[in-house]
Amino acid sequence: MPQFLGGIMTKLWQKDGMQLNKIVESFETGEDLLLDQKLVEFDVLGSLAHAKMLCQIGILTKNELNSLEKGLKEISNLNKIGKFNLEMGDEDIHSKIENYLTEKYGEAGQKIHTGRSRNDQVLTALRLFTKKNLLDIKKEAKNLIHSFNSFAEKYQELEMPGYTHMQKAMPTTVGVWAKSFSESLVDDLICLDSAIKLNNQSPLGTGAGFGVPILNLDRELTTKLLKFNKVQENPIYCQNSRSKIDAVTSSALISILMTINKFASDIMVFTTSEFSFFQVSDDLITGSSIMPQKKNIDIAELLRSKVNVVLGNYTQIVSLSSNLISGYNRDIQDSKKALMENLDITSASLKVTNILLNNLLPNKKSLATTMTPELYATEEAFKLVKTGVPFREAYQKIGKLLRQKGGVKNGSRNK
Amino acid sequence: MPQFLGGIMTKLWQKDGMQLNKIVESFETGEDLLLDQKLVEFDVLGSLAHAKMLCQIGILTKNELNSLEKGLKEISNLNKIGKFNLEMGDEDIHSKIENYLTEKYGEAGQKIHTGRSRNDQVLTALRLFTKKNLLDIKKEAKNLIHSFNSFAEKYQELEMPGYTHMQKAMPTTVGVWAKSFSESLVDDLICLDSAIKLNNQSPLGTGAGFGVPILNLDRELTTKLLKFNKVQENPIYCQNSRSKIDAVTSSALISILMTINKFASDIMVFTTSEFSFFQVSDDLITGSSIMPQKKNIDIAELLRSKVNVVLGNYTQIVSLSSNLISGYNRDIQDSKKALMENLDITSASLKVTNILLNNLLPNKKSLATTMTPELYATEEAFKLVKTGVPFREAYQKIGKLLRQKGGVKNGSRNK
Amino acid sequence: MPQFLGGIMTKLWQKDGMQLNKIVESFETGEDLLLDQKLVEFDVLGSLAHAKMLCQIGILTKNELNSLEKGLKEISNLNKIGKFNLEMGDEDIHSKIENYLTEKYGEAGQKIHTGRSRNDQVLTALRLFTKKNLLDIKKEAKNLIHSFNSFAEKYQELEMPGYTHMQKAMPTTVGVWAKSFSESLVDDLICLDSAIKLNNQSPLGTGAGFGVPILNLDRELTTKLLKFNKVQENPIYCQNSRSKIDAVTSSALISILMTINKFASDIMVFTTSEFSFFQVSDDLITGSSIMPQKKNIDIAELLRSKVNVVLGNYTQIVSLSSNLISGYNRDIQDSKKALMENLDITSASLKVTNILLNNLLPNKKSLATTMTPELYATEEAFKLVKTGVPFREAYQKIGKLLRQKGGVKNGSRNK
Amino acid sequence: MPQFLGGIMTKLWQKDGMQLNKIVESFETGEDLLLDQKLVEFDVLGSLAHAKMLCQIGILTKNELNSLEKGLKEISNLNKIGKFNLEMGDEDIHSKIENYLTEKYGEAGQKIHTGRSRNDQVLTALRLFTKKNLLDIKKEAKNLIHSFNSFAEKYQELEMPGYTHMQKAMPTTVGVWAKSFSESLVDDLICLDSAIKLNNQSPLGTGAGFGVPILNLDRELTTKLLKFNKVQENPIYCQNSRSKIDAVTSSALISILMTINKFASDIMVFTTSEFSFFQVSDDLITGSSIMPQKKNIDIAELLRSKVNVVLGNYTQIVSLSSNLISGYNRDIQDSKKALMENLDITSASLKVTNILLNNLLPNKKSLATTMTPELYATEEAFKLVKTGVPFREAYQKIGKLLRQKGGVKNGSRNK
Repeated sequence: MPQFLGGIMTKLWQKDGMQLNKIVESFETGEDLLLDQKLVEFDVLGSLAHAKMLCQIGILTKNELNSLEKGLKEISNLNKIGKFNLEMGDEDIHSKIENYLTEKYGEAGQKIHTGRSRNDQVLTALRLFTKKNLLDIKKEAKNLIHSFNSFAEKYQELEMPGYTHMQKAMPTTVGVWAKSFSESLVDDLICLDSAIKLNNQSPLGTGAGFGVPILNLDRELTTKLLKFNKVQENPIYCQNSRSKIDAVTSSALISILMTINKFASDIMVFTTSEFSFFQVSDDLITGSSIMPQKKNIDIAELLRSKVNVVLGNYTQIVSLSSNLISGYNRDIQDSKKALMENLDITSASLKVTNILLNNLLPNKKSLATTMTPELYATEEAFKLVKTGVPFREAYQKIGKLLRQKGGVKNGSRNK
Repeated sequence: MPQFLGGIMTKLWQKDGMQLNKIVESFETGEDLLLDQKLVEFDVLGSLAHAKMLCQIGILTKNELNSLEKGLKEISNLNKIGKFNLEMGDEDIHSKIENYLTEKYGEAGQKIHTGRSRNDQVLTALRLFTKKNLLDIKKEAKNLIHSFNSFAEKYQELEMPGYTHMQKAMPTTVGVWAKSFSESLVDDLICLDSAIKLNNQSPLGTGAGFGVPILNLDRELTTKLLKFNKVQENPIYCQNSRSKIDAVTSSALISILMTINKFASDIMVFTTSEFSFFQVSDDLITGSSIMPQKKNIDIAELLRSKVNVVLGNYTQIVSLSSNLISGYNRDIQDSKKALMENLDITSASLKVTNILLNNLLPNKKSLATTMTPELYATEEAFKLVKTGVPFREAYQKIGKLLRQKGGVKNGSRNK
Repeated sequence: MPQFLGGIMTKLWQKDGMQLNKIVESFETGEDLLLDQKLVEFDVLGSLAHAKMLCQIGILTKNELNSLEKGLKEISNLNKIGKFNLEMGDEDIHSKIENYLTEKYGEAGQKIHTGRSRNDQVLTALRLFTKKNLLDIKKEAKNLIHSFNSFAEKYQELEMPGYTHMQKAMPTTVGVWAKSFSESLVDDLICLDSAIKLNNQSPLGTGAGFGVPILNLDRELTTKLLKFNKVQENPIYCQNSRSKIDAVTSSALISILMTINKFASDIMVFTTSEFSFFQVSDDLITGSSIMPQKKNIDIAELLRSKVNVVLGNYTQIVSLSSNLISGYNRDIQDSKKALMENLDITSASLKVTNILLNNLLPNKKSLATTMTPELYATEEAFKLVKTGVPFREAYQKIGKLLRQKGGVKNGSRNK
Repeated sequence: MPQFLGGIMTKLWQKDGMQLNKIVESFETGEDLLLDQKLVEFDVLGSLAHAKMLCQIGILTKNELNSLEKGLKEISNLNKIGKFNLEMGDEDIHSKIENYLTEKYGEAGQKIHTGRSRNDQVLTALRLFTKKNLLDIKKEAKNLIHSFNSFAEKYQELEMPGYTHMQKAMPTTVGVWAKSFSESLVDDLICLDSAIKLNNQSPLGTGAGFGVPILNLDRELTTKLLKFNKVQENPIYCQNSRSKIDAVTSSALISILMTINKFASDIMVFTTSEFSFFQVSDDLITGSSIMPQKKNIDIAELLRSKVNVVLGNYTQIVSLSSNLISGYNRDIQDSKKALMENLDITSASLKVTNILLNNLLPNKKSLATTMTPELYATEEAFKLVKTGVPFREAYQKIGKLLRQKGGVKNGSRNK
């Protein structure tokens, strides 16, 4: 974490010293400040727990703790009304909070960072932030499971064709199709729970990544205060685990978005005028700036794209942390955005998929028309099997019959 | 799954018809045949369970089942001695097995595919294959955890510097450093277990992806026979889940390889002549073709690279299945190699890391020399804190002292 | 491009209709509005060229053109002083501009979109934007080449060790090392020029992606006015080329960032206290919040990470556009951010690398100390070769000599 | 490049020493040996040029050169008939060749490696290999451009709908559609030429990456003999450029495969029974193992997947080389496979796309039926514009008309 030691950059770059300073500062902290804003409430929580513990072990007096509690509450309230904003020139959210406390509460502020490093502080705030977001996502995923199940029940018997190789294959129903997505999400929750579990470990008290000597911090206490499930013991692993746990978190989100991508891909094909299996409520339809007749389902396209976006962010997280030695490396800062984006995208995508599903209506007439006889060929073969014909023989018999009737036209050249 | 319908490709391409056929065939099945070889034993298992179930529900006679059991056992034995090899011209492992059974056991062979599609058959074999490999990897990971713990215990008190930003930061010990990897692997097992859980569902009996009508298959029975944990219910989801579960599997492997990458990255830096914290047994050292003096630790470099290889394969799996509609799409075939490679790489990497660790010796003299006073600066500051000095003040005091002694030289320009 | 047709979303979602509308709107356009801000000046340019051409072919009167020119100039000026900002509720930059013109200049505004679709309009603005950025990047890259060359000349003869497998290998000089980066950047310009060439084609006049019938647009004229190098002919390809050209652009940036990554990776290792080959001016050094003695070169770490960030964005661009059919698909919107970020990152990284290089000083004493005899082993072998000894024999002879002197200790266990 | 120094691995691993050796050896060279086989002919070329140069500068006698020329020719011939195969236990192709020469031609063999390192030798062979493959790919790409142009000419006037957001948008023709792919490939050649240019530089003579002292090698001569375009000067950059040039090469291949992916994606949708715009010759159609009626176009699915595979390989190349210091690092070995696969895949994909295109037939009847009136709405609006109506007014008028006729049903709910 940066603290510029020199203020004499002008010496080397006399002509445009001031500007140089800005280029470097913007490169190092520019966008990061915006992201840090999301961490204010979690850093307040972490600082509060740390202060309570410092008081417990005798480093802070009761009075000093009271001051800090008051100060942190002020910060939290300012933040809620948008008045605790990071600006260019601020180093990061963590020093801004420390500075506020020192300015307003003097010595108490100077003591808040005792036995804490920016490294474990940041990690703690990020864990709390990630855990909170994952729990919200879990709730949204369960809502969506519920919606898919309701949809499936409603259209349990409504026939639609199943496709393999994008060609009509066998009969299925709208209900079975919808249920495939809820069953998929149920599996996705397994990965989500793993991600929550990994994020549910407290790194607070491991300092810069090599523990905190002399002071006898009570890590069990801060863990309990922050409602983490367990102490993350090894201080080096705490730092090393950041990218790995961010990667695990993101891969769990990718699972969810793969499910949504499949649904959105189906919607995009099944709502073409050629398929016409479903309609989407006009409320979700967009038009064209040039073609008066167009009705597009942009919402499904933007849902479809998301897994690919999060895949790219995942690549960033894994790739930028690989080939680096143990301990904090500043490179990792660049994965903060990827992680936050992944959480935002997944949360929004779950909500929007739910909206789309609730505005989706099967086109019963089209579906009825499309249930052509060749879809039942396999069923016919099985009926022959039931009479004792070996399957391969039945398969060939039915195939021949279909060819005689000219029933297999799709995609093939009729000579 | 392909079955060429035409044999008349020469018509359109008279000049070099035969060659054309080969280009297309090689494009469609070329490398896949090599990969399929690994599935023989698992397809035999799947076929056996399917046959038993078909007999149970009255589609196969006891005699037919006996024939098939005999035939499948023959295939398994041939395969073990390398005599059941796929060759160019074979379609895939699954038809090769069916063909063998039909040729040798006539009608029984023709019936084995009753109520089964290549789609659920392939998926079943892949699941069995993946589960087996993941369980082996879990065992290897536990071995490695054990080795890291032993190493950590042995060198629990041996001091080494901890690094942040690649600069010496605070004292730690070889034991703490080694323990960081075993703790990391323990977390990795959480993801591995999720992957095993997802692979522990039986897709057998879902046919092409839309269920099997008429025949009343007993899916519980095949699930039990194959030692799967549960029936994977929804037939559409079975097919859609393939890429997703492959992705989950691969992301679990990436976690493990991130841990190994961190270890290997440390080894590469800590064994430079400049750091010289560790030595590696000559048995694992390689030389140079031109420089007589060189001693390289290629093994650590090749361990380091692996997470990046598996990351690329993961990208393939997610990317090639995204934006595709529900149901089997042949694109997915191209992810078979990625999955198999990921499993192989992770298994080998765990074994080789264990070997490297067992041939690693701390260089006690170098480590002692490198424990310079500035590493203890934070400790000094904490000692002041203990006497009642606020941390920020103590921090500044110690910093000033160090600068006076000229103790902060690393990487900075001394004016 | 979206135009919500319905305003009756409340019907289906009576309880929280307004909020729903916001979720969907934010999902569809939220972040995109921020990105669009960067396109204002380029859309103004495109609109101006389009209007001039419409006047030329008789669709706009001279007066109408004058109004539009006036209006577009106003927009441009407002934008320069930060008063033409997109807000939630605006659809995108393109309709905001059209709306402004229509409100202020009536019929002329209503005519500006004649023969134009949002699809070719957006593409035109993006091309102009990308080309401008690439040309700036080219200039920055040339500056950096110049700096590396100067640095190389200055330290042409200053010896430093060359490394293979991270082990000392053979002697080289700081000059040769620095020159390796300028030579690398010279090659990178080849890819940059290809990217510029592909971006230098005008898609304006291809409408929604299927051409503009009836109106006889003069595409040569707009191409000339916008200083594009050529008309991009095929209208379907115009739309399909967007992702591909974004990918080509990004891969050219990856080349540059691979060069910078190598430099930054070297800096991070060569400035450790263990290597100590270089020092970085205090002006670029950051400290630690807990360790009083730390001096870190965060700037090099953040340069190092960038290629990995852009790699992830590249993955997004390729992956989200793959498996989609021809013609505009809204998914593509999500690649706008990836592209813009890649351009920003590369531009900033080139500037910051230049700053870092200008604040880098070789540590002559350390370098002299590190030039140990075994580095010259290959040279010794070549000297033997010059006397007629076959190379393999010379190699073995020198190797043996070195082992006798105990000169090969690095990384190997001495028994 | 590895040369195991120790043979005493059993000491540490007495129980299963032999097996351990195999695990490590297989991990280090296993698959690499298969890949190296493809480099034999190129290493022979490189060795030949190197030997001629060594003779020219007086290090080899005329006789020794003759011996080496003879030996290398033998190797080349053995390789052509499949009798110069690498086996487990061989180190790599380069030492196998050197060993062959030494065994058969004694001192001449011992001298071949004079002034050469495995590092520049491998790089030279890889460059020659890559250049050759890229030139072949260029030829295939040109063939495909020709085919698309012919197809386009043939169906220049055959109407088909153009799609945006996967919804029918405006009329286009099969010719325009086909031409979009040839125009795309023409652009792809620009990137291909950049890749060829970068691969057309000779690294031979730069040794391990730090030049070759004492011997006065004539690098211009080997460059000329190997038909490289220029000497790649800086020895450090030679090594560093390997991954970067592999990445550039792969990104050029990604461009081509993005074009093919678009074509294949179109084919998959346009040959569904619902669209039915095209038919594919039965010769390229595959069936199903369970559904007697199925006719699938697996070839298009497998073409579609390829860009995603190569994207993953590209990720490997960039990711595994990032964050590594200058000079050869063994990690890079793992990118050999990615590069070779990318070249193979692209070459095959171009050929197979050509075959698919030559077996593609528009379905004129379906195409005629699908050209419904709303496709011409924009044209109608433009006709109004021609009469003086401002475009936005014309757009609204036509839109209203269409809604009255009930002509906009696609994908929207009709209330």
